[in-house]
Amino acid sequence: MADTAAPASLADPVEIARALIRCPSVTPDEGGALGYLEGLLGDAGFTVHRVTLSAPDTPDIENLYARFGTRGPNLCFAGHTDVVPPGDPAHWRFPPFEAAIHGGLIYGRGAVDMKGGVAAFAAAALDLAAEHGDGLPGSISLLITGDEEGPAINGTEKLLRWLADRDERLDHCVLGEPSSRAVLGDMVKIGRRGSLSGTLTVHGKQGHVGYPHLAENPIPGMAKLITALQAEPLDRGNDHFQASNLELVSVDVGNPAFNVIPAEAKARFNIRFNDLWMPGTLKAEIERRLRIAAGNEVRFSVAFEERSSDSFLTAPGDFVDLVVAAINETTGRTPELSTTGGTSDARFIKDYCPVIEFGLVGTSMHAVDESTPVDEVRALTRVYKDIATRYFAAFGR
Amino acid sequence: MADTAAPASLADPVEIARALIRCPSVTPDEGGALGYLEGLLGDAGFTVHRVTLSAPDTPDIENLYARFGTRGPNLCFAGHTDVVPPGDPAHWRFPPFEAAIHGGLIYGRGAVDMKGGVAAFAAAALDLAAEHGDGLPGSISLLITGDEEGPAINGTEKLLRWLADRDERLDHCVLGEPSSRAVLGDMVKIGRRGSLSGTLTVHGKQGHVGYPHLAENPIPGMAKLITALQAEPLDRGNDHFQASNLELVSVDVGNPAFNVIPAEAKARFNIRFNDLWMPGTLKAEIERRLRIAAGNEVRFSVAFEERSSDSFLTAPGDFVDLVVAAINETTGRTPELSTTGGTSDARFIKDYCPVIEFGLVGTSMHAVDESTPVDEVRALTRVYKDIATRYFAAFGR
Ligand SMILES: [Zn+2]
Ligand SMILES: [Zn+2]
Repeated sequence: MADTAAPASLADPVEIARALIRCPSVTPDEGGALGYLEGLLGDAGFTVHRVTLSAPDTPDIENLYARFGTRGPNLCFAGHTDVVPPGDPAHWRFPPFEAAIHGGLIYGRGAVDMKGGVAAFAAAALDLAAEHGDGLPGSISLLITGDEEGPAINGTEKLLRWLADRDERLDHCVLGEPSSRAVLGDMVKIGRRGSLSGTLTVHGKQGHVGYPHLAENPIPGMAKLITALQAEPLDRGNDHFQASNLELVSVDVGNPAFNVIPAEAKARFNIRFNDLWMPGTLKAEIERRLRIAAGNEVRFSVAFEERSSDSFLTAPGDFVDLVVAAINETTGRTPELSTTGGTSDARFIKDYCPVIEFGLVGTSMHAVDESTPVDEVRALTRVYKDIATRYFAAFGR
Repeated sequence: MADTAAPASLADPVEIARALIRCPSVTPDEGGALGYLEGLLGDAGFTVHRVTLSAPDTPDIENLYARFGTRGPNLCFAGHTDVVPPGDPAHWRFPPFEAAIHGGLIYGRGAVDMKGGVAAFAAAALDLAAEHGDGLPGSISLLITGDEEGPAINGTEKLLRWLADRDERLDHCVLGEPSSRAVLGDMVKIGRRGSLSGTLTVHGKQGHVGYPHLAENPIPGMAKLITALQAEPLDRGNDHFQASNLELVSVDVGNPAFNVIPAEAKARFNIRFNDLWMPGTLKAEIERRLRIAAGNEVRFSVAFEERSSDSFLTAPGDFVDLVVAAINETTGRTPELSTTGGTSDARFIKDYCPVIEFGLVGTSMHAVDESTPVDEVRALTRVYKDIATRYFAAFGR
């Protein structure tokens, strides 16, 4: 860090982080984490909504939306308090829900993903509210889900719809997922590739290996089609995005016998695609490749999963610039503007307002001994507060 | 049939077949079938051995060996009384263990595979014993297993070893499996291709689809290797054998997630090979093809199953000629000398004596409403008896 001095923060993000880590909020359990934030923010004058969302065949999920101020523009910090299971606590150096501090690190499940980030932006928001009071030239809000690590069905996506139904407008959003790669500030994510999954089935005719002419083995055709799917790159990427990529994630026949030719073979694939494609154009391209490779020889069908997501890009401009300036101010680093990696709840938020992702170093996320330096949580709090300050200076009314 | 007149048989093969079908001898159950044969043959002066064979992790299996005569040569009829399960009896036109006769057909599980065949050769052997008594210029024997449809571990293979341990010699063998294709007598099997099975594993490195450069997807390499395995025919066959053939029977990854690149992929294959190969030369060829296709890019391993079987051929000559003559005498047909199809217990018998396979039309084997014409069972009995008569005329001492 460029600056490891004591925090200028009134609220202590490290203690907020520790209080959150002590809540065993493994998806779908709220674990006390949202109740804690409700108290903390409510006491400081935030209007807090606790929103429980439901859907058939999934557990009910608690979510939270808190806002300080009534004017626009509304700068939203988004994140989640749910965490993945800790596994066997005996494998941990310190108990996963104790938030032990040792050697300058806070240990615990969620320390980086992302209770450390939630604590940092809660502390920044509390500071801002305390400093500006009614004079804040806009609003600052927190959108916190309890279903990011789970199926994400009763989380951010529905919470955003719930807000829109109430004419609650978000103008810009910072998602606090751990975006930094090696050191705080080395990367900010300004977009994500889209994701499309599908299942390819090659149809044959079952038979006995001794009589292959009476059967039709689907496996050689499957090998041909999956080779064809990947023979040419989908694209070469562009200024903001790396090349789109198709991965075969499974091929399955499930035939336990050595003397039976199977009736069909299935392959499952996922495509991470950039903004050169839309889900529809991509599906057409996949079908085209399969059709050409299959010719009249291979009988196949392909089914795409319903939950695909578009790619998105928050194009470099005023908002991205002020985020980069704030990161540079505290860390001394100029972050890479990246669109790499997996999906996040930003895929839902981008349908409502421009969103970027910036947070802690993610290396230990989901792992045993997940931990984050105390100093990084403090530095991240300063970055978030600086982002808000610059934001209201630029966009405030 | 060339001749559908009443049987010359003293023992009635149709009643023997019906008695056997009424025994519910689904592998591994003896079901009373061997007990019935023991009584029938013992009463006629055969020396009967009931042999129960065992191995760890498999059920004990009852088998039977019966011999009439003490001199050589010993002509053996081989077969099995165990049957595959009938499935839901409600799907059958007649109950599977009742041996109903309707429209000239005997219905029941095992009617063609192969209680009809066992009945035919038991009746032929009983006739021969009754006609020749001590004057038979050789011996006639029956080798019946209860483990042909099962794992075949406690069946023919071990029973042959049990006989060899007792210096019991077989000189020639007729295996009564349903060898006929469309009509009785159109095909006799004089050999079989060998069988070799194996599992190919392509090794990769697990990872997230969003970060493919940190992972190593084994599936494209698998597609390449299985395509390479089949790119060139193994051979073109020869006078007695069709071409060797490799079939991929399964490809499995078992990855339930769309966002995870799997760590490995497995493919299972089976090769039916002719006498241009030995298991060792064939394994070397498979490994060579895989090695060339893999280059330095694909990490793979291959494991072959232990229970491979060699190909074998009972070359045309005196024994095959007399079998063909007997078939022609009763059916008017000249059978094709074939080496096609799946494996049979002939793969074990060929290590002890020349063996051919001749029996009923197999179309309905293992199916619902398995059935065989009454006339075919009688005609097959005449063929078997004629084979024995010609055999002792040619080889008897
Ligand atoms: Zn997260
Ligand atoms: Zn059989």
